[in-house]
Amino acid sequence: MEIMKTLNRRHLLQTLVMASGSYALGAMAAGKNPPEKGNTQNPSQPWRYVTLDAEQTSELSYQLHTAATGCMYGVFTSIVTQLAAKVGEPYKSFPCEMMYYGKGGVAEWGTLCGTLNGGAAAISLLVRNGTERNALIDALFSYYQDTKLPQYVPKNPASKMEIPAVKTGSVLCHPSVSAWIKQAKVSAYSDERKERCRRLSADMAHKTVELLNASFAGTAVKPANLGDKTTGCLSCHGKDGALADVSTKSCTGCHFPDVKEHP
Amino acid sequence: MEIMKTLNRRHLLQTLVMASGSYALGAMAAGKNPPEKGNTQNPSQPWRYVTLDAEQTSELSYQLHTAATGCMYGVFTSIVTQLAAKVGEPYKSFPCEMMYYGKGGVAEWGTLCGTLNGGAAAISLLVRNGTERNALIDALFSYYQDTKLPQYVPKNPASKMEIPAVKTGSVLCHPSVSAWIKQAKVSAYSDERKERCRRLSADMAHKTVELLNASFAGTAVKPANLGDKTTGCLSCHGKDGALADVSTKSCTGCHFPDVKEHP
Repeated sequence: MEIMKTLNRRHLLQTLVMASGSYALGAMAAGKNPPEKGNTQNPSQPWRYVTLDAEQTSELSYQLHTAATGCMYGVFTSIVTQLAAKVGEPYKSFPCEMMYYGKGGVAEWGTLCGTLNGGAAAISLLVRNGTERNALIDALFSYYQDTKLPQYVPKNPASKMEIPAVKTGSVLCHPSVSAWIKQAKVSAYSDERKERCRRLSADMAHKTVELLNASFAGTAVKPANLGDKTTGCLSCHGKDGALADVSTKSCTGCHFPDVKEHP
Repeated sequence: MEIMKTLNRRHLLQTLVMASGSYALGAMAAGKNPPEKGNTQNPSQPWRYVTLDAEQTSELSYQLHTAATGCMYGVFTSIVTQLAAKVGEPYKSFPCEMMYYGKGGVAEWGTLCGTLNGGAAAISLLVRNGTERNALIDALFSYYQDTKLPQYVPKNPASKMEIPAVKTGSVLCHPSVSAWIKQAKVSAYSDERKERCRRLSADMAHKTVELLNASFAGTAVKPANLGDKTTGCLSCHGKDGALADVSTKSCTGCHFPDVKEHP
């Protein structure tokens, strides 16, 4: 009986190894991948994308973002889980749970907002051309810092908390949260702040899908407007400036207007 | 002939769909997953880890980090590619190229250093227990900001560039680069800075593997020391402070010592 179990397991494993080894080839042979978009730097193919409904993605991201899973998981998984339902593999096997790490600007370090880390990861999974990938990420990040958010209102709000929409001017978790709570007049650890972040997950999943839909429909993404202040800083500090001592696309979230006021 | 091709393709696809659908179950049934480490929040299983050689990982990360692929890809792929060689699937099918997005603090936005985004992503792929995952990420991030880096010297250095080791005090790409170039007296766009970042990829892949090896060997990770200044800030601004208006684990990289000096 034990020998039978071992043999069956061996046979199963052999079948699996053979099948998984030929999976990529099989999918390519079946025409499952889109035409490349000027990809010259990487031999592996991006995964097939199909148009998603941005509104549905919002709601899904809001639901997927819980206290345990977080913002990065919410945005990324709202996209991948729909593609898994529509396309199947390899999306179905993607270990979305790895995206838990982005919560609170990565393990509560307050760095990059997890909705953006998740959105950028989803874009990068699907768009392999570097110029297009960066243009989409630029558009996503600029929208985040320059728009009054959150805009999403859940279909069935759990409570009547007031969640104001605030333009925070930063793509980083801590400065973004600080700017929002200052206007909302609540603690960074309040239920209102947590609800704000869940709604942000909805908004950024929505925006990510809008950008992906446009990109795969062949619509050129406009170069992001980094704003007069950042452009001004980079005229001296950026790559082509006299100082060339800074590499960033956003200055004002940290350096203005509070830099002189903060101790 | 065309019909035969179609039939063969259909048969191949059916086999693949069946096999891929049962892959997770098959791997679990074959005892390919490690025992859970107190994971209660997530039903899906982490992938099997085997001890890696930290020195080899350094060199591999250095090689994988090119101008096109970047820091996040270097660190993440140095780990996953070795596990693919030792364990096979599902590592072999992981689309590591998605990690290109982390370059330059995500698409050159200068936010979270890509070596840390990649290290945290690798940890999170492998460690599903939230407390352990965050402890490992805390240790990785603290090491990064509090250690004179880079320490790695390539086996065959391409040139005799001087690459000083500097403690930068930040986990963010832009402040970290700025602190380093200030001491190295070079531009943020110089070959020296690029070589520094490649060596950082080696160092952080090394540290990530050290932490993973210790964690899977059952060694408890010491709580990270956030430093007196950050602890001081958080005593008022953190979750248990009177203000409770900040959620972060690092203050001094942005707020000290330059905050009063910068315009």
